[in-house]
Amino acid sequence: MLPEYLSQVKKLVLKKIHISIGNSNLIEDVMSYSALADSKMIRAGLVFASSETNNNLHKESVTTLAAAVELMHTYSLIHDDLPCMDDDDLRRNQPSTHIKYGEANAVLAGDALQALAYEIISEDIHLDSNEKVHSIKTLSKACGKNGMVYGQFLDIENENNQNIDQNMLDEIHNLKTGKLIECSVMLGLIGGDLKKEEIDFFEVFSKQIGLAFQITDDILDITQSEEVLGKNKNSDIKNSKITYIDILGLDAAKNKAKELIVLAIEAMNAFDIQGRDRLMDIAKYLVSRQN
Amino acid sequence: MLPEYLSQVKKLVLKKIHISIGNSNLIEDVMSYSALADSKMIRAGLVFASSETNNNLHKESVTTLAAAVELMHTYSLIHDDLPCMDDDDLRRNQPSTHIKYGEANAVLAGDALQALAYEIISEDIHLDSNEKVHSIKTLSKACGKNGMVYGQFLDIENENNQNIDQNMLDEIHNLKTGKLIECSVMLGLIGGDLKKEEIDFFEVFSKQIGLAFQITDDILDITQSEEVLGKNKNSDIKNSKITYIDILGLDAAKNKAKELIVLAIEAMNAFDIQGRDRLMDIAKYLVSRQN
Repeated sequence: MLPEYLSQVKKLVLKKIHISIGNSNLIEDVMSYSALADSKMIRAGLVFASSETNNNLHKESVTTLAAAVELMHTYSLIHDDLPCMDDDDLRRNQPSTHIKYGEANAVLAGDALQALAYEIISEDIHLDSNEKVHSIKTLSKACGKNGMVYGQFLDIENENNQNIDQNMLDEIHNLKTGKLIECSVMLGLIGGDLKKEEIDFFEVFSKQIGLAFQITDDILDITQSEEVLGKNKNSDIKNSKITYIDILGLDAAKNKAKELIVLAIEAMNAFDIQGRDRLMDIAKYLVSRQN
Repeated sequence: MLPEYLSQVKKLVLKKIHISIGNSNLIEDVMSYSALADSKMIRAGLVFASSETNNNLHKESVTTLAAAVELMHTYSLIHDDLPCMDDDDLRRNQPSTHIKYGEANAVLAGDALQALAYEIISEDIHLDSNEKVHSIKTLSKACGKNGMVYGQFLDIENENNQNIDQNMLDEIHNLKTGKLIECSVMLGLIGGDLKKEEIDFFEVFSKQIGLAFQITDDILDITQSEEVLGKNKNSDIKNSKITYIDILGLDAAKNKAKELIVLAIEAMNAFDIQGRDRLMDIAKYLVSRQN
């Protein structure tokens, strides 16, 4: 079952993150505070699920790549929560890093988490150098100036912009959320035997679930409590950000998310590959989750 | 002559940074603002100088590695200048990035510059995969939780601590400034033929010049104008940070910097390697510079 699967992934990845951060100095404490806090581990789950189609990747390397993606995700959350960005004081069911340790330490912990993501890939003992370079290239592109960071830039840039349309919103979230989700799926395929045209279907799948994930986030933000979400509700309203609910309305947004998952699963069904079922389970979970 | 050498390095590295950042979106403008501003390019110069002892590294790869180090240095300056850190509003003879573009964009530009440093190494066309992994491991370790970021953490943590002694100050600056300087020298040796015991001397050399560089920074802060420095004077006093001048006094600090350079040059003279002269020239320049 998927919950057990994700719980097993979480156990492996948190152990790897715990060992990788260590606890020999105080900045490591700040890094661990959010990186080891309770989280859904969806991106790590995608790395593992994607790797089920790939017999060439050692389980420990899957864990390394999944941990790298989660370190990157955690750094982005810490920086996004800063007062100068989204100014959110609750994250992963606890005070945000800058509330607990101050802004300077939050900036620095995020910076060090990003460096650590590349470091642990470079030090993995089963990946060969080509696979490491491929992984690092994929991760750095997904998270940089044409990926996650640019998405957050556009998101902040468009605060108070009431003229934003669905295409623009899709672009922002494809970058801000979708790129790292796509990267997670791609990292699970590292070193594998898939042909280019097969990998293309994984990309189509990733893009659909990335958007569906974000639309579901917007839905949950207005239908769930802060306690269930573990983070601030109405952060977008506070920051005058347009959401999918503003553009589509609640019911159409729910339908849109479901349609995207149908398209994602169609993409995965376009060819016959062993082990793809787990990815499809996660796709369905992304729109049925409660937090 | 060294000024011409550094000027040539600067030309190559700025061109590489310019191409790597690009100018297709607005976050790239924010990144370029500080990354392309006038700077001393000392770290890039060290990568080039160190590579003069290494015949195996293609000149374009030296440029890539030097650009990666400068991107990393620039990101650290942008983040260190933030109001929640050192709160400096002048850098590289222009308003700091957060003054020009706001705090959120400064955080994001720094984040993207860090990602780009790894990305350009992963995409270099002359380095082989082993060399890329070695370079990325070296860079991520130098800049992470046991390197540059930890140094900045300790630096901020010890604001208002009047009991700081020279050992503690040495530790902070070995981490904050020294690790990236050492990394620059090490990157110039990537793929080379030196034996472990020879590389050890480059390490000793790097540690001495790293400290000498920082002591000279403290000296220049009280002996030069903001116009010559291109950054805020008295930033340490404002932030109640102890400097080498506080602990040693001006004359002893000058002597200490010179002694460290003598030790650095002794380390480089301990063996006979072609091409080491340029590194020694930079070592001498580090303590004789005027900004």
